Amino acid sequence: MTTTKVLLDESEMPTRWYNLLADLPSPPPPVLHPGTLQPVGPADLAPLFPMALIEQEVTTERYIPIPDDVMDVYRLWRPSPLYRAHRLERALGTPARIYYKYEGVSPAGSHKPNTAVPQAYYNAAAGIRRLTTETGAGQWGTALAFAGGQFGLDVEIWQVRASYDQKPYRKIMIETFGGTIHPSPSTLTAAGRAVLEQDPASPGSLGIAISEAVEVAAQSPDTNYALGSVLNHVLLHQTIIGEEALLQLAKVGDAPDVIVGCTGGGSNFAGLAFPFLREKLAGRMSPTIRAVEPAACPSLTRGVYAYDFGDTAGMTPLMKMHTLGHDFIPDPIHAGGLRYHGMSPLISHVYELGLIEAVAKSQRECFEAGVRFARTEGIIPAPEPTHALAACIEEALRCKETGEEKVILTALCGHGHLDLAAYGAYLSGELQDHALSDEAMSSAVASLPRIPA
Amino acid sequence: MTTTKVLLDESEMPTRWYNLLADLPSPPPPVLHPGTLQPVGPADLAPLFPMALIEQEVTTERYIPIPDDVMDVYRLWRPSPLYRAHRLERALGTPARIYYKYEGVSPAGSHKPNTAVPQAYYNAAAGIRRLTTETGAGQWGTALAFAGGQFGLDVEIWQVRASYDQKPYRKIMIETFGGTIHPSPSTLTAAGRAVLEQDPASPGSLGIAISEAVEVAAQSPDTNYALGSVLNHVLLHQTIIGEEALLQLAKVGDAPDVIVGCTGGGSNFAGLAFPFLREKLAGRMSPTIRAVEPAACPSLTRGVYAYDFGDTAGMTPLMKMHTLGHDFIPDPIHAGGLRYHGMSPLISHVYELGLIEAVAKSQRECFEAGVRFARTEGIIPAPEPTHALAACIEEALRCKETGEEKVILTALCGHGHLDLAAYGAYLSGELQDHALSDEAMSSAVASLPRIPA
Repeated sequence: MTTTKVLLDESEMPTRWYNLLADLPSPPPPVLHPGTLQPVGPADLAPLFPMALIEQEVTTERYIPIPDDVMDVYRLWRPSPLYRAHRLERALGTPARIYYKYEGVSPAGSHKPNTAVPQAYYNAAAGIRRLTTETGAGQWGTALAFAGGQFGLDVEIWQVRASYDQKPYRKIMIETFGGTIHPSPSTLTAAGRAVLEQDPASPGSLGIAISEAVEVAAQSPDTNYALGSVLNHVLLHQTIIGEEALLQLAKVGDAPDVIVGCTGGGSNFAGLAFPFLREKLAGRMSPTIRAVEPAACPSLTRGVYAYDFGDTAGMTPLMKMHTLGHDFIPDPIHAGGLRYHGMSPLISHVYELGLIEAVAKSQRECFEAGVRFARTEGIIPAPEPTHALAACIEEALRCKETGEEKVILTALCGHGHLDLAAYGAYLSGELQDHALSDEAMSSAVASLPRIPA
Repeated sequence: MTTTKVLLDESEMPTRWYNLLADLPSPPPPVLHPGTLQPVGPADLAPLFPMALIEQEVTTERYIPIPDDVMDVYRLWRPSPLYRAHRLERALGTPARIYYKYEGVSPAGSHKPNTAVPQAYYNAAAGIRRLTTETGAGQWGTALAFAGGQFGLDVEIWQVRASYDQKPYRKIMIETFGGTIHPSPSTLTAAGRAVLEQDPASPGSLGIAISEAVEVAAQSPDTNYALGSVLNHVLLHQTIIGEEALLQLAKVGDAPDVIVGCTGGGSNFAGLAFPFLREKLAGRMSPTIRAVEPAACPSLTRGVYAYDFGDTAGMTPLMKMHTLGHDFIPDPIHAGGLRYHGMSPLISHVYELGLIEAVAKSQRECFEAGVRFARTEGIIPAPEPTHALAACIEEALRCKETGEEKVILTALCGHGHLDLAAYGAYLSGELQDHALSDEAMSSAVASLPRIPA
């Protein structure tokens, strides 16, 4: 029996993040101001973000050093383990070698603290006292509540009311870490009050919650806003996942033939894949890199590549990305972290360049993979990474047919301890698949803003 | 900044369990047959346990090799990390060095799989096809469901109905791992039916659930029963915790001055403490070893040392132990794993020999410690280990006053992801302390069976 867990010592932890912008054959299209339709500049973003993060958003430096104070917090759970899935391989009878990088060991139970911690750090360093954000299922809110506490920041979170009511454990976890949480729409903001006037029983939406968090941040000079995915600097911070995985695979003398990761806004996928994409662009490796998205929210496989807003209300800058339309409301699948209408502009660009591929999976196949994984590997995955596991198992079974001993690498981006209700629904046969009809697709993209060429 | 996590490579994992019986100055009093009042022999236990475990229950061999197939499953999460609590120390302003051994990385999220896996292994090796057990809050049931699955055993679990109804996530977790779960009392057993006839709405008790699980196991030759604490072989399997911690502390050149662990049945405490007690008995170390129990169920600090039954119904052999009386029903504190009327006979004996000390803590102080720990170290502890953390913090603050740079070691035996409701109650100020009145104590011990001297 060879190694099960490939560990790195803290002294081996990468000390810099990797910026894919340095190595792309062409830059992604600029982000546009929604009023002027001109590229946004640092001044446009300064009311919401500290200058250090704005610089990370646009820099083409290949490597960004990780500050010592961030390294110090990372050490609470990083380097994260890379597992060889011996028991899953045996259960599948595949000659493939399956590795998974496990981010569920973090305080929030997912990859989100990898960026929450530096975001809190840079804001505190800029003299900010409070961060606001939105959260859907609650992973991002939990991560930011914890991270803010490490640097003396108050963290105020607007959670979509439907999730706030359905998932009380996330609220308690956020409060245990010291965060303040409001159901959204709330009476604390003009945006929230406007919605409640129309519909006092509004279940809320991520778009409304973003509007509330942004409104509060924009009004107070000591308050900034933080985002958990989509933007370049968020993807940058997540690259520590892939940088560690590179070192860990080197330790066991393996290189990946196939890399699969689930994609919502894209930060988990980018975090694992971008350092390997650097190796691929440099000709040192040649993995197939595959994004896996939910069939109910297939921005890469069925969306259009166009300028669109990041939020439902249309308040953000315009980003060129794969999108289902900013007022698209995905069916209520359990992988809440994958229910985003758009895909990170940087990942969209990389997809357009043909550097990665994408597939979509229905949720029953994903939960089947999740249960299979739990029973063999002993970790109950969050609903989001079950998408990657389903694609992983598909590839491993293909290898079983062909006899290929491929090396498959995936990101197990979080545990499912707070998502067990979804497993309950699956095990009792109540879980529905939600595929997207062509009609729903066409009507969704009809909302795209018109940009002159 | 020195190391945060002290890791062991899989190749450094201890390959044998440590048996404290080999080193005690006197043996513990024998376990008695409840009918004959004579010491029980292997034949008395054979209907419930495989011979390998019965031998481990009574052997005085110092070390028991861990079978390869058990090592193989252990590698899914072992060696577990030892953390230096830098951030907690800093928040307390203590010169003490605090280390915690974290068992929440296991499939069940606690130390329980350390014994569930070998118990499943030895039963499967003896040709057993099914295991039955009881579970309260659900930690043990989860561990055995997972472990059974690794060796092809069906696992059937009777869960106290009150917990079954209140904690649906545990039921789902058990089913995700492939276990079968029944609310107890159930109509599946004579014991359950008898209770339901008296009280169709019975909320159940651990005692009733044990009776049901034992009844089913005793009736089928292919079915055995498994217990998650109290017995010698269970404590034996847990000693891998302390053996690893010894190696890890040696790596950083530290030796503990104080060891604290929470105690319910005693397996977590023994698992950490016994290997250090070996060192203490041999004169190689001199740590103070302190058990921490809930003020609502203080078997060591306020119970009597007497022969008593292990279950409420009085069906088990008689064990000499610190007990509150077998029909004592502890107040419904959130640390469900510490609500046991007795203390492991081996730990009780060690306590009588003066080798360990004990303190009791009220639950609000414990949750205060739990929240403090979460906000500094990033891990939300289960309610059980918050008792150890409260004692840890008390000791660290004592060091702050005296200026002593003591090394404090504790076992963080599980995470609190499925116990967040308890944190919610604490944070909203609804949590009550449940101290035990002298009257309740006296009436509880009045139920003790009378044993002729």
